[in-house]
Amino acid sequence: MLGATGFGGALCARLVDTHPSLDLTVATARAEAGRRHSDVYPRYGVDRVLEEFDPDATAERAQAALVAYPHKTAALAVKELRERGLKVVDLSADFRLDRESYERWYQPHEAPELLAEAVYGLPEAHREEIKEASLVAGPGCNSAAALLATLPLRGRIDDAVFDIKAGVSGAGREATEETHYSSAAENVNAYKVEGHRHSAEIEQELGPGRFSFVTHLVPLDQGILATCYLTVPGLTKDEANDLYHEAYDDEPFVEVADEPPHTRHVQDTNRCRVHVTVVGDRTIAFAAIDNLWKGAAGQAVEDLNLMLGLPENEGLV
Amino acid sequence: MLGATGFGGALCARLVDTHPSLDLTVATARAEAGRRHSDVYPRYGVDRVLEEFDPDATAERAQAALVAYPHKTAALAVKELRERGLKVVDLSADFRLDRESYERWYQPHEAPELLAEAVYGLPEAHREEIKEASLVAGPGCNSAAALLATLPLRGRIDDAVFDIKAGVSGAGREATEETHYSSAAENVNAYKVEGHRHSAEIEQELGPGRFSFVTHLVPLDQGILATCYLTVPGLTKDEANDLYHEAYDDEPFVEVADEPPHTRHVQDTNRCRVHVTVVGDRTIAFAAIDNLWKGAAGQAVEDLNLMLGLPENEGLV
Amino acid sequence: MLGATGFGGALCARLVDTHPSLDLTVATARAEAGRRHSDVYPRYGVDRVLEEFDPDATAERAQAALVAYPHKTAALAVKELRERGLKVVDLSADFRLDRESYERWYQPHEAPELLAEAVYGLPEAHREEIKEASLVAGPGCNSAAALLATLPLRGRIDDAVFDIKAGVSGAGREATEETHYSSAAENVNAYKVEGHRHSAEIEQELGPGRFSFVTHLVPLDQGILATCYLTVPGLTKDEANDLYHEAYDDEPFVEVADEPPHTRHVQDTNRCRVHVTVVGDRTIAFAAIDNLWKGAAGQAVEDLNLMLGLPENEGLV
Amino acid sequence: MLGATGFGGALCARLVDTHPSLDLTVATARAEAGRRHSDVYPRYGVDRVLEEFDPDATAERAQAALVAYPHKTAALAVKELRERGLKVVDLSADFRLDRESYERWYQPHEAPELLAEAVYGLPEAHREEIKEASLVAGPGCNSAAALLATLPLRGRIDDAVFDIKAGVSGAGREATEETHYSSAAENVNAYKVEGHRHSAEIEQELGPGRFSFVTHLVPLDQGILATCYLTVPGLTKDEANDLYHEAYDDEPFVEVADEPPHTRHVQDTNRCRVHVTVVGDRTIAFAAIDNLWKGAAGQAVEDLNLMLGLPENEGLV
Repeated sequence: MLGATGFGGALCARLVDTHPSLDLTVATARAEAGRRHSDVYPRYGVDRVLEEFDPDATAERAQAALVAYPHKTAALAVKELRERGLKVVDLSADFRLDRESYERWYQPHEAPELLAEAVYGLPEAHREEIKEASLVAGPGCNSAAALLATLPLRGRIDDAVFDIKAGVSGAGREATEETHYSSAAENVNAYKVEGHRHSAEIEQELGPGRFSFVTHLVPLDQGILATCYLTVPGLTKDEANDLYHEAYDDEPFVEVADEPPHTRHVQDTNRCRVHVTVVGDRTIAFAAIDNLWKGAAGQAVEDLNLMLGLPENEGLV
Repeated sequence: MLGATGFGGALCARLVDTHPSLDLTVATARAEAGRRHSDVYPRYGVDRVLEEFDPDATAERAQAALVAYPHKTAALAVKELRERGLKVVDLSADFRLDRESYERWYQPHEAPELLAEAVYGLPEAHREEIKEASLVAGPGCNSAAALLATLPLRGRIDDAVFDIKAGVSGAGREATEETHYSSAAENVNAYKVEGHRHSAEIEQELGPGRFSFVTHLVPLDQGILATCYLTVPGLTKDEANDLYHEAYDDEPFVEVADEPPHTRHVQDTNRCRVHVTVVGDRTIAFAAIDNLWKGAAGQAVEDLNLMLGLPENEGLV
Repeated sequence: MLGATGFGGALCARLVDTHPSLDLTVATARAEAGRRHSDVYPRYGVDRVLEEFDPDATAERAQAALVAYPHKTAALAVKELRERGLKVVDLSADFRLDRESYERWYQPHEAPELLAEAVYGLPEAHREEIKEASLVAGPGCNSAAALLATLPLRGRIDDAVFDIKAGVSGAGREATEETHYSSAAENVNAYKVEGHRHSAEIEQELGPGRFSFVTHLVPLDQGILATCYLTVPGLTKDEANDLYHEAYDDEPFVEVADEPPHTRHVQDTNRCRVHVTVVGDRTIAFAAIDNLWKGAAGQAVEDLNLMLGLPENEGLV
Repeated sequence: MLGATGFGGALCARLVDTHPSLDLTVATARAEAGRRHSDVYPRYGVDRVLEEFDPDATAERAQAALVAYPHKTAALAVKELRERGLKVVDLSADFRLDRESYERWYQPHEAPELLAEAVYGLPEAHREEIKEASLVAGPGCNSAAALLATLPLRGRIDDAVFDIKAGVSGAGREATEETHYSSAAENVNAYKVEGHRHSAEIEQELGPGRFSFVTHLVPLDQGILATCYLTVPGLTKDEANDLYHEAYDDEPFVEVADEPPHTRHVQDTNRCRVHVTVVGDRTIAFAAIDNLWKGAAGQAVEDLNLMLGLPENEGLV
């Protein structure tokens, strides 16, 4: 487990630590190396000393790794791990997009040679490929919610507005003016209006379309609600519901609800609740996830379960 | 002041009580008649005993009235007050729409004969008519935010999605499962997906269009953010900003901001902050207001100031 | 599981449902009988239809029961279950106190003949008796926190102030003015100043003393922090810490921390974090628990594990 | 107004800006000099460019100053201003204590020669001295709450526990791990267990005693509740209430309430609500204030009003 002290990485460490079939053999950190994980995150109770990242030592002790580093740093670490034969789930953006899209919205890629083997880690879209993969790119948390809300309509969406409401943990562990309690409490604001990075991820998975993507910060810790306003010619409410049930009724972590979902209903779980309706000629679809679980760490463990041939929901709730 | 113990009415009472040119001579309540307002709302410090509503006594003591009753009850009270010659600002939905729209989305109207004299109380759209009016209908809080975000584009909007994020006080003072702290905290959910009532109000003010309107409950007390995704053929970012500055730079309570607004920036004020941008061929406009102020009580006092020939911003911040 | 729709009872149902050695065979409710538990509490994912309480049917399907009814109703249900031979953990106050104390602070007791067999369900104080017991009374959540903070000093405390900060879920599921988001958010207030009921529980466990007990409502959902100001003649900081480590180092759910505990550190766990220091001649001791876990449902399952000869921490985190 | 971008200083700027008898002629900042105050704090609407501090320019434009700098920096600035003849209210700790106490708990004093003229700025204790003063030291926010809760019993308190619950804005504007939303929300913890600095302030005002003082961080923005557990030999509940009413009934900003106060009842006001009761032989007294108002900026303006011969409550609510 690399990068075990960010919000997503810390939960990865806990989920691996309590997983029936996995052992947590390495947990890395930079500034906090030397401290116990349980001193940094007492709630998670992971009794392991944080270490600096050493690729060889990691390869000796682990067959697979979750990487929760920032963009760019992640690609470099993944490269080291893949060279040593470890299966990797990477939670950064580094392996989510093709090279052109990535370099357009981020920066020059540090390990472009690995892009060909990377699979986009949303089991509801790519389960079979994930099972065979050695490198899986965990979806962005906001994109994951948007995609889960709309996948059953893939290929039929002419126009889409993705209005995302995201809890503060999604902004990361860094203490900033934005994440200060006295800024974030009793407040809501849009903070990523352009949304190009997310749109690239969405278009890759849904196909091209006229897509708008705006993320809002809302005063809760964990949770994302995606409200998606779609133009899907000819779709009726009944047909929409049939499609969603067909797509999701056998999924272990997605529930089709009769009412718009609440983020609280999936808090601290790997579950996603979706709801779809048609009002006039607009299809409105919702998905609620916990950004640290189905949006990051839970998703990564689900991917790892698939890659290792374990039951998909093992160690998860 | 009729109905001084709901959230909006209680603030009306306070704003009148501290208004330099107005006297609070009556404050009514039903269940809480006999108590002091300051015992029910200590924060507002209004030292007046709540009374049951008596139209004659009210007419003896007041020249104008703010009515903060629920739909239907409001129409009946307004009728009594108008018969006695009082100028009235009504905060309910009863006089916002024409009879046909009202009866379609609400119920049979209790005082349809008054609809002809009622003016929609959004000064940014109807200032001169409000000045001459004897009966003003305060806009719904969610509609007010949506309209303030989009008025400068009136007549040019082909398609609009209004995604509203509203604080819990907007759901009213009644204690319900939805307003319980343990439901509302750490949660966000859509709760008015159909949105017909709001759409009627919006179409009346903006003209017809393909409009979708969804309201979400977010875990804050006071505040509304309207995010509006608009199709306005040919509009550029610069032109959009010019139109907004032109429309609002002389407005006492609307500010055009360079960044997406935060509800916290207008908390406990009658101000509205708007922001507009164009991304691709989609215009995205935001408005933040405090639902109890510019969305209800502050707006009502602003209307009353206009009706009484007082400075529009007197007694307001 | 009786009373599975209150906050504590709902979590009991989930903990039994996911427990490796227990089966949830009955979940009762009154108003909500007939609904699925997972529709009332989607977050917990308990896929079972709620039933009205039927003692015979319960006895046929279960060997043990958790009862999460209000005071008085609980005693009547426990009586029925005990008559049918079930082991019972009762979460109400009905079996916590001796008859005289109970009837002084509550009401006439409905099943006083059972009081002799009831054991106070705090394993840190009564583990061996709980193992042998057929009827265990789960401690009150505020008392549990206060006791865990002070048990290592039992018998030496001359004077104690217990200042309790409790989250809103502790006030129960009923929607009231107090639990309305717009009252509870951005607020803190004392709400049980007299504290006699808690003091009775505390004195029973700690022995008599000059004890004050005040509970405060703080704006969080789950969590209790007990701050205890104690006069313990002659106690030094080192000795205090030795006593706490001695008392708790082998406990599965209590951690002695070097810093004052945060409720967030134990959120959604059955753990308790305590801290003790001596400033001048005052001993200050803290305990943080999750009121729904170590303060109610988690504690009840821990008791049940002991009564059934299972590992104490099975099914708990 | 010096230091207009901390939480307390920003509110000072706003209160002076909207004060009927005062003009805001200077507002200083360091890192944010050059920006408009209303861009940093949009909610306050203070349309003034922030400047670096220049003692001469300040003296030219102002007769009096509010200083909201950190400890030590404050003393240096106050010295400059006093040398130029300005009346000063300082919000830091620098002039609250005598030199010995200050240097014991803080650091060497930068302007000890001014200590003789400094008056402790709590009007309820020192109104007449404040009227005559040229230098007033605003009380610490936690101490202010503790003192207002207990002043009517001054000289009779043998033993006191001050348990303080303070909102996050009290921890200041700096973004830290403690003030991160994801740490502070859904949490409560003690953070100043030793409490010596506050005790020094308390003892200075109440006289010596066995005092304990612990501050807790609670998840709200603005507000302090002080719960005070007192040993006052012989005091009865009736006598206690008589003393509180006698002390406070003529006070413009203190209300004696029949129930324990809520911080929400005084939010965004300069008011303090107190409540006292006697349970057994313990006197329990409460005070609720808004830490930014009666605990800092509002208090400072109240002091300034007194120093300038203005009505004490002018410009305040």
